[in-house]
Order: sequence, then structure tokens, then C-alpha cells
Amino acid sequence: MKIECIRLYEEREDVTLTAYVLQDSQELMAGKKRPAILICPGGGYFNCSDREAEPVALRFAGLGYHSFVLRYSTYCEGGAFPNLSKPIPPKERDQHPAPMNDIGLAMRLICAHADAWLVDTERIAVCGFSAGGHNAAMYATRWHEDPANPRPAAAILGYPLTDYVFKHESEMKQDPGAQAFFHASDTAFLGTPDPTEAQLLDVSPSRHVTENTPPTFLWATAADELVPVQHSLLMAKALADAKVPFEIHIFEEGPHGLGLADQASAQARSQCFADAAGWTALAGKWLEKRFALPLPEKSAFEIMMENGGFPT
Amino acid sequence: MKIECIRLYEEREDVTLTAYVLQDSQELMAGKKRPAILICPGGGYFNCSDREAEPVALRFAGLGYHSFVLRYSTYCEGGAFPNLSKPIPPKERDQHPAPMNDIGLAMRLICAHADAWLVDTERIAVCGFSAGGHNAAMYATRWHEDPANPRPAAAILGYPLTDYVFKHESEMKQDPGAQAFFHASDTAFLGTPDPTEAQLLDVSPSRHVTENTPPTFLWATAADELVPVQHSLLMAKALADAKVPFEIHIFEEGPHGLGLADQASAQARSQCFADAAGWTALAGKWLEKRFALPLPEKSAFEIMMENGGFPT
Repeated sequence: MKIECIRLYEEREDVTLTAYVLQDSQELMAGKKRPAILICPGGGYFNCSDREAEPVALRFAGLGYHSFVLRYSTYCEGGAFPNLSKPIPPKERDQHPAPMNDIGLAMRLICAHADAWLVDTERIAVCGFSAGGHNAAMYATRWHEDPANPRPAAAILGYPLTDYVFKHESEMKQDPGAQAFFHASDTAFLGTPDPTEAQLLDVSPSRHVTENTPPTFLWATAADELVPVQHSLLMAKALADAKVPFEIHIFEEGPHGLGLADQASAQARSQCFADAAGWTALAGKWLEKRFALPLPEKSAFEIMMENGGFPT
Repeated sequence: MKIECIRLYEEREDVTLTAYVLQDSQELMAGKKRPAILICPGGGYFNCSDREAEPVALRFAGLGYHSFVLRYSTYCEGGAFPNLSKPIPPKERDQHPAPMNDIGLAMRLICAHADAWLVDTERIAVCGFSAGGHNAAMYATRWHEDPANPRPAAAILGYPLTDYVFKHESEMKQDPGAQAFFHASDTAFLGTPDPTEAQLLDVSPSRHVTENTPPTFLWATAADELVPVQHSLLMAKALADAKVPFEIHIFEEGPHGLGLADQASAQARSQCFADAAGWTALAGKWLEKRFALPLPEKSAFEIMMENGGFPT
């Protein structure tokens, strides 16, 4: 594996694409190109959580796909989390549409390196968690609005926000901690703690699903108290309505932000849930239907042994 | 992740330890040490197969463990596979006990870097496949014969050879390709195509299991025609006899050398078997009982939200 970290903007060290490129070998793909996954960690548009970055990249790399972590534009710009108990000043350069545009830039960077990294550019999935899931869903539903954007071949969304109108209504019933979190997050992402209806509709991927939206895998937990599971269900309904292939898995237990839902991405025991941890295997099976590697029928060793031990 | 390749011997470029060291983060282990897996690929003591190297390391890295690939001393010394249809000349420096001693050197290297790499030296598993599984089993059963050798905390053996007396008897009934393979392999590993009974016993890990042998996870396929499944069963019996904790999974279908048994390690479709591919999840569960990461009960985010959104 070769790991490379590339800045999306020369002058910013916080917005980066980290490539986890699998080693090629004559015994494996022998120069053939592999599919890839581009991962957007969550963090409420304040930051990009390490818990949803490298651990997820390595899980997908372990399935045989090149993996990429995108640290898109966020409010903290790589610095400390703000105090959510008081209003925060807006920061324009990190607001919508910067995070979604960063995905487009990252996709173009991957395509530009496709020969060196042996990436099959027809098979790049976007993946994200929480706000990163929202960002991935934004790109999945709106990529075609910019002709320079490569088409994503699939989307994998973990406990995403998908409907900001629903978010706005539901957060009024949430506890003060969650309300403070979302007011600050709206300032981070939309420049105001009180966005207009038009703004809310504009950033609701579940309202923008079309035949241009790629096949989508969704998962979440019904017990999520920060981002209600309805976000995933609304997205699934929109995909069903548009006849876009999709799969959804809602696990009963587990709070928001599980990541891999096991110790590989956990900061605490409270982020380990055996049932929800099944999502990576389910996503792997689903992905393999689209991202099967181009393998021949027989291995070189089989052919050699059939040939009485002569190297071929 | 940081990847580093270290030579075990300054003058040899073929015998190396490749470290796949997970990135530390305040959001993850925050400076605490993690367990590790040392992986010995197979290749009949001729070479170390890429198929059982990086793909396996990444699978275990994806479970939250530092991973290491050891390319131990083998006959081809990194070069091409010999023509097995004629006798090959012996090469002393790659013969037993060099491969087993290389594991000891690699374990010491890992321990020497434990602070820099954040490795929990009390929890390093040795893992191997086929001849690499034999080598790992050799170290697991005989590490204590050299006081400089660190104790392995667990062993994970995929379709290993464990009993050379049984091997010698069974290969007489195998097809000419397999016979040619094992005669050459014996020359590579023992310096002769016709080892003595004492030599065969000496390199049979299933005959050397004691209370010093660590808990062991075994898996193989009943349909393996190159290395019969009896090797795994004899090892399991020896572990049961010595009351060493173990787990064994024999899958009905699949030829020798499956690696991960899915596309991530496959050169061909013939190396993908859905049932056998379950072994990594089984090994992960088994390993986690011993290698659980030291995580606190609650995450920083939970504590912050309980605190009304104030950073802690």
C-alpha cells in the first residue's frame, strides 16, 4: 500500500485527499485497475472525525478496493471544536457548496491519478457518515449539475442527514444539547442558525434524487437521538420513488456516530454494537455486486500444477 | 497509517518486515498501545506469496490492530519460482531453522519499536498460511527454546502443515505434481528431498505443543488436495491434549491457498469461496476476546453533549 496526502487547495492544509492505494502484484491484479471508495468523515460540518476516516478506509482497503479519505471544508479548519453553548460567527469559505465541491475536486484528482494508482474511474463510490453522509448524498444527487464532475458509481451513507426541512422541524423537539449543536452546525454549513425554507430545500439530498443518482446503500440505527433515523428512511423512499437501486439496513440499537460500530473505530465502549457492526459486511456484499474485480477463472499455481510442476 | 519496510539482514533485500502501523488519534486510542499481528505468507518455503501478505495485513489493520508482514528466508530469495519437475540444489542459508529464527528477529524488531509504533508487546499474534502457517506454528511451539524470543500471545494458522511425518506418508499417495512440489519444498526447507525421521519429527509443530504454546485459531478446507486437512486436525488434537485454548474451523469446499478466500486476496475466481471467506470474521471474534482494545466507557462527544455542548 502506498499512502499519499494531497492538498485540494495549495493554501489550505486542512482540506486534503488521503490516498490508500493497494499494492499491485503479479499474483493479484497484475496491472489491472481496481474500483475505489471515497470516504467523507462526519463531524457536523465542524470537522472531519478521525474515527470515520482511516479506520473506514482500511476496512474497505481490506476488501480489495483503493480507498480515499476526503477532509472537506469544515468550520474548524482542522482546529479545535467550538463551544456550542454560544452563537458562533459564520465563515464563508467553508459553507455550502464548498464541502460538496470538494468531493468533485477529489473525484477529479483520483481520475487524474487513475493510471498511476490503477483506479477504475468508472467504479468509484462515494461514502460518508453523518454530515459526511449528507455531503456524499449531496454529491450523489447533484454531481451532474457541474459537467466537470465525474459520476459516482455508488453511494454508501451511514446515519446521514438527508432532509433539512425535516431536520429543522425535528430539532425543535430535541434536547438543548442537540439544539445548540444544530444551530451551530447550520451556521457552519449555511452561514446562519436560521436558514430559509429555500436554503433547507436546496441542501436536502432526499429532495433531489433523480435517475442520475447512483445505486445507494444506507444504514443507521433506530435509536439514534441526534440524527433521527427518518433521514435514512426519507432517502430510501426517494430512491424507491425514482427507481434507483438501493439497500437499507436499520439496526435497533446504538447511538449516533458509530462509525464501524466496533473497536476499530471506537473511542469508547459505548460506540461498539455487535449488530450494527454487521453493516460493513452487508455493504461489502452489496458493493461486490457492482465492484467485482476482473479475475480470471484459474490461478497461475493451478495451471502450473496441472502442468506437472513446470512454471508457466 | 504509516508503512515501513525494514530488512532483517543488512545484506539481504528479500528478508523483510513490513510494518502497517495504524495512525494514532485523540479521537481513537489517544496514545495507548494496540495489539499487533505478525503475518507469515505461504509459498512452500520457495517464496512468500503477495496474496497472503498485504491483503491479510489490511484485513487485520481494518480490525484495529497494527499489522506486520514478514518475508522470511525462502529458497527463491525473492526471485522466480524454480521448475519443480527436476531436482533443485540445496541453499543452506534459507533452510530450517532460518525461517523460524526470522520470526524471532521480527518479534524483537517489533518490540524494539513498540514505543514509536504504540504496540502492546504482550499482545502480538503470529499468523501464517500454508508453509507460513507451518513457520508460525514452529515459532508458536518452539519460541521458548531461545530466551531472546518474545512470547507470542496467540497463533492464527490457515491451512498449515503441522506434521511432517504425516506429510511424508501422505504425499506418497498424491499426484505427481504434488509429489514434485513437496520433494522440491523439502530440499528448500530441509536441504534434502529425503529427510530422516528425526528431521521430520523436529519440524512437526503438532509434536511440540506444550503449555508454552499460545492459544491458537486454526482454519482449513476439507477439500484441500495439496496440504491435507489432517494437518490442522492433528494440530487441534495436540492443542486439546495439552489443554491449550484453541478454535478450529474446517470448511467443506475450497482448494489449497485460499488466503482471505475472497476477491481481496484472489488471483482467480477459483480462490473465492463464500463459506471459507467467513474465517476472517471468526478469527476477528476469537482474537477480540484476547485483544480487546482498552477503551473507556464513554466518548468525549457523549460527555460534551451531556454537558450542554461545552467542550470538555
